[in-house]
Amino acid sequence: MIVVMQKEATEADIEAVRERLTAAGFDIHLSPGVARTVIGAIGDKTRIDPASLEAMTGVDKVVPILHPFKLASREFHPENSVVPVTEKIAIGSRAFHIIAGPCAVEGREQLLEAALAVKEAGATMLRGGAYKPRTSPYSFQGLEEEGLKILAEAREASSLPVVTEVMDPRYLSLICEYADVIQVGARNMQNFFLLRELGCVPKPVLLKRGPAATIEEWLLAAEYIIAAGNPNVILCERGIRTFETYTRNTLDLSAIPVVKKLSHLPVIVDPSHGTGKWALVPAMARAALAAGADGLLVEVHPHPGQALSDGPQSLTPANFAAMVNELRALAPVMNRDLA
Amino acid sequence: MIVVMQKEATEADIEAVRERLTAAGFDIHLSPGVARTVIGAIGDKTRIDPASLEAMTGVDKVVPILHPFKLASREFHPENSVVPVTEKIAIGSRAFHIIAGPCAVEGREQLLEAALAVKEAGATMLRGGAYKPRTSPYSFQGLEEEGLKILAEAREASSLPVVTEVMDPRYLSLICEYADVIQVGARNMQNFFLLRELGCVPKPVLLKRGPAATIEEWLLAAEYIIAAGNPNVILCERGIRTFETYTRNTLDLSAIPVVKKLSHLPVIVDPSHGTGKWALVPAMARAALAAGADGLLVEVHPHPGQALSDGPQSLTPANFAAMVNELRALAPVMNRDLA
Amino acid sequence: MIVVMQKEATEADIEAVRERLTAAGFDIHLSPGVARTVIGAIGDKTRIDPASLEAMTGVDKVVPILHPFKLASREFHPENSVVPVTEKIAIGSRAFHIIAGPCAVEGREQLLEAALAVKEAGATMLRGGAYKPRTSPYSFQGLEEEGLKILAEAREASSLPVVTEVMDPRYLSLICEYADVIQVGARNMQNFFLLRELGCVPKPVLLKRGPAATIEEWLLAAEYIIAAGNPNVILCERGIRTFETYTRNTLDLSAIPVVKKLSHLPVIVDPSHGTGKWALVPAMARAALAAGADGLLVEVHPHPGQALSDGPQSLTPANFAAMVNELRALAPVMNRDLA
Amino acid sequence: MIVVMQKEATEADIEAVRERLTAAGFDIHLSPGVARTVIGAIGDKTRIDPASLEAMTGVDKVVPILHPFKLASREFHPENSVVPVTEKIAIGSRAFHIIAGPCAVEGREQLLEAALAVKEAGATMLRGGAYKPRTSPYSFQGLEEEGLKILAEAREASSLPVVTEVMDPRYLSLICEYADVIQVGARNMQNFFLLRELGCVPKPVLLKRGPAATIEEWLLAAEYIIAAGNPNVILCERGIRTFETYTRNTLDLSAIPVVKKLSHLPVIVDPSHGTGKWALVPAMARAALAAGADGLLVEVHPHPGQALSDGPQSLTPANFAAMVNELRALAPVMNRDLA
Repeated sequence: MIVVMQKEATEADIEAVRERLTAAGFDIHLSPGVARTVIGAIGDKTRIDPASLEAMTGVDKVVPILHPFKLASREFHPENSVVPVTEKIAIGSRAFHIIAGPCAVEGREQLLEAALAVKEAGATMLRGGAYKPRTSPYSFQGLEEEGLKILAEAREASSLPVVTEVMDPRYLSLICEYADVIQVGARNMQNFFLLRELGCVPKPVLLKRGPAATIEEWLLAAEYIIAAGNPNVILCERGIRTFETYTRNTLDLSAIPVVKKLSHLPVIVDPSHGTGKWALVPAMARAALAAGADGLLVEVHPHPGQALSDGPQSLTPANFAAMVNELRALAPVMNRDLA
Repeated sequence: MIVVMQKEATEADIEAVRERLTAAGFDIHLSPGVARTVIGAIGDKTRIDPASLEAMTGVDKVVPILHPFKLASREFHPENSVVPVTEKIAIGSRAFHIIAGPCAVEGREQLLEAALAVKEAGATMLRGGAYKPRTSPYSFQGLEEEGLKILAEAREASSLPVVTEVMDPRYLSLICEYADVIQVGARNMQNFFLLRELGCVPKPVLLKRGPAATIEEWLLAAEYIIAAGNPNVILCERGIRTFETYTRNTLDLSAIPVVKKLSHLPVIVDPSHGTGKWALVPAMARAALAAGADGLLVEVHPHPGQALSDGPQSLTPANFAAMVNELRALAPVMNRDLA
Repeated sequence: MIVVMQKEATEADIEAVRERLTAAGFDIHLSPGVARTVIGAIGDKTRIDPASLEAMTGVDKVVPILHPFKLASREFHPENSVVPVTEKIAIGSRAFHIIAGPCAVEGREQLLEAALAVKEAGATMLRGGAYKPRTSPYSFQGLEEEGLKILAEAREASSLPVVTEVMDPRYLSLICEYADVIQVGARNMQNFFLLRELGCVPKPVLLKRGPAATIEEWLLAAEYIIAAGNPNVILCERGIRTFETYTRNTLDLSAIPVVKKLSHLPVIVDPSHGTGKWALVPAMARAALAAGADGLLVEVHPHPGQALSDGPQSLTPANFAAMVNELRALAPVMNRDLA
Repeated sequence: MIVVMQKEATEADIEAVRERLTAAGFDIHLSPGVARTVIGAIGDKTRIDPASLEAMTGVDKVVPILHPFKLASREFHPENSVVPVTEKIAIGSRAFHIIAGPCAVEGREQLLEAALAVKEAGATMLRGGAYKPRTSPYSFQGLEEEGLKILAEAREASSLPVVTEVMDPRYLSLICEYADVIQVGARNMQNFFLLRELGCVPKPVLLKRGPAATIEEWLLAAEYIIAAGNPNVILCERGIRTFETYTRNTLDLSAIPVVKKLSHLPVIVDPSHGTGKWALVPAMARAALAAGADGLLVEVHPHPGQALSDGPQSLTPANFAAMVNELRALAPVMNRDLA
């Protein structure tokens, strides 16, 4: 990192910074300038918090040179990571995977109907929430364990592996019994206790980007999981919060090439939450594939007008099938296989 | 709420909406227009999810008329709420309370020094984190239970009640043993399991606004806690995420009069996180008092240059004391008492 | 529009609103509710400013039902507009057009080299700024009229029509002499005097979205131009300002299907400004095509390391050619022709 | 500035950067590191565009050390600037000035009534727009020259100097005949032709911050005016665009101490546009004073419910007078005089 001293910094200020960095094991290179001194520090950035240097007397600013994440970085792991889900399914390979299903598991019939429809259309995994984070305490909060059992039944019926969300560490072992991939919702991206425990489970983790998270913070959240022992992290871009109100969020598709550059982790896109309107989903799904995403997470409901959550952004099975057909035409151009 | 139908909506579409609303117990008032039909629905909005109506065929949009929160609203509780902390201290009364102390408890000596210094200067409560949410897994994560014990010792030494953060429901009962006020951090504002359990503890909750949360979502988070049984919620504005990079966040002081209008809950301001730079804290603290806030949450560290977290935004005890003196001059003009 | 009265509104308040709307030629439909009165008003929304109603005593809020733009709306003009540029080139047709060239015209040699290179690779129009809006007064501000002459020479040499920016109405007639398409920069999107005068020129206008403009405001800016007499508006999405700092802006590709739904105007994408980094441009260009854009505006510089502006986001001719080849493979899948 | 090279940068890459900087007159200091080379460059940053360095092969990033503005910076001009308006009125002195009046001049009677009322309550300057930037082409666009004449009449009647907005350079000399202070609206903050011409007029300029402008960009806009010859710039914070929808903008009061630190220019606050709701204006006005602002720009309309623009954010004369009384009590605590 580089420490830029203030114009008014004294010799003693500079010496204090130098000592602190040396004590933390950094190699120091001093550039005394006319206007101000610049201190280059080479070493393991995890040994010191740049913010604490910035609070020292005489320091103007600290400029990090390396990224703050390591295990999630492409420098550390130059090859693309491929995250295995089942024997046949892996995210980050040549195959482009579509994970589809309703926002929430609302009942046996609804989920089975959805599972068979999305399977038929070409989805390779089933999504459905049993525990639902809802903005209002008066909204439907999910069927909980009953929902997990229905998911298991739908997996049996459709042979699609199942993705479902964990909201609280206390339910993690229960959810692990039922789920093939554990989802971390956008609002939990920085639930650090949860992230650490996901480092200890034998299942892949689908990590959604928080609505106000920078790409760097998102990769640091992945770093928590990997550092705690679980390398199988799938990133999911789902839109960030901006001033635009026509869409529910602003889907940041540039995050795909950025993640591909900074990290080795696979990245998929959720155009349903990313737009909040089903009519915009197919265009954004095609764009995600064209931008290099490894897959999609899409909301499909047999009867969106009766959905207990996220109806306006849910595709009908027919619209979903039409969208998959478009993607099927696009995939070969992107050197992707679509089931 | 008002349901605006699309121009192309059929009689059957309108009928379906009408039936659904009637079944949910709403009184219906139909306004057939030249261009499109508008359906007014009067009833308890918690009985139906507006989004699910929006997903019905022929519906253009749903416009809520009432706020989605009820227990947190001023309509429901016209008088200001006063949240008792100890026998002598209550937030939301004429007294303006300053909660001060370091970001993290780093050790016995540091915390005791901070506690006595802020007490001396005029703070009426002590803050300090034992469990720290950190963006990077390589940053200091807090002293955990050891930190709680030090907080208790500092309370003993200073007679200041203690505010500390809970990050995970599993630690809630432990933290309740030590804390006088339980803080919910900005990144946990929508940790709904945690919010619900805070409804069951016999301590006040200091609920920080999430960095990407609208005021409505913040009040809905408070609604979770109140609806679960705990009416003692103190709101805390701490800055929202915007495009401006000079400050760490953008402190939204207009949230103070907005909250005062929409809700009966007390609201305090955290100018330390709100700006990220200690030199900006005094001006924003004065502005918060002038805008009508009920108190402040401020970071003070005996040696900011050695702080393990948030050094750049921590005041020294001397700067803190100078700031409190300014506030003391301002308080009477705002009809506030400052200890 | 719908006027929702406050709970406390008096009969006189309601009557005043009703009179005002009636005087403005609206048909009124009153829905007296238990909780509050709702007034539906049918008529030409351009005859009254909703904000002025909102300021009336007893009014809670005004909810517009129709979009505030008319000539730019798809309701008014259901077919896609095709904007003719030359006899052979039209934007909004089946042909996918790539407008390429340097940010600024820096000299004869630079522009001619760029023009021939992008032509060779497949671009159908040439871009280049003679008047440059620069954040700092100390940055290169463009070659002005000399730049326009060089653009004309490059058009001659390459037979590519030319797109260049107008920053001030006083230069409009001069620029019209040289340009085939007049560009309005993002920072001028709400320069209303300029927009009105663009309504009077016989050239198509390429209207960039402002960095903080909603899609509705962007379409209202187009409405200014169309209402003043020029229907040939090409919209250009170029990224909006968000909290993410890795990219210069956040490219909002969902704006493409949104614009296609709300409006009949063609829409192209500028992935260079949208990302600020040349390495991200190809992925975003493919995504734009896949999302349904009608073309691209791309920065290409023969020697980006020597560019006087926007070097970091400029493709080299070789990288540009590689990108166009990828797009050429993608275009047929999207039913598009690419030269 | 500091140039950080990529890990893969070659000797030739480093040499090229060094040569370019030397040629531009910079003194160079090379720090060859283990991981990567860092080049310190000392000299006049206006001689080279950092972005153009960033586009050179082998360069990772360029970190500016000095601010990009000079004439507007406090380093260049350590004392506060005081901007004279009339013989008796100057902004940036101990006097706290309130500029009040309607958004738009709508007629003789309206403006005279407003002028006398705000004068009576304690305002020291009158605002009113004759040329109005309106989002929709169908909204009232101002009375133009007729409005300027009414402003002059109101000045005569009230002896308040007049602030009014210029939207287009062609009207600048006309507006200069009538106005005492020329306002640049938020949407014109980066209309660089206009800024340059404001450098040549003998009147102070009130420069509003753009809704998506960083503080650095705002000060660079001021730099344009000062560099062109007019040092009399008054900055005006009026809210930035964020995701929060309850308020029209998010008033960034932290901009006040930031501007005071970075610049010598006076800064005032517009709480009317900053909130969009008159009921929030008094709290934000008090907060602005407490945060160190030099004055206010406030919308007051004799009959907000009949206003042709911005009614919902306009105070009545009575509410304005009440607000000024509160400010009068606050001013002495802030060492300010209020008429």
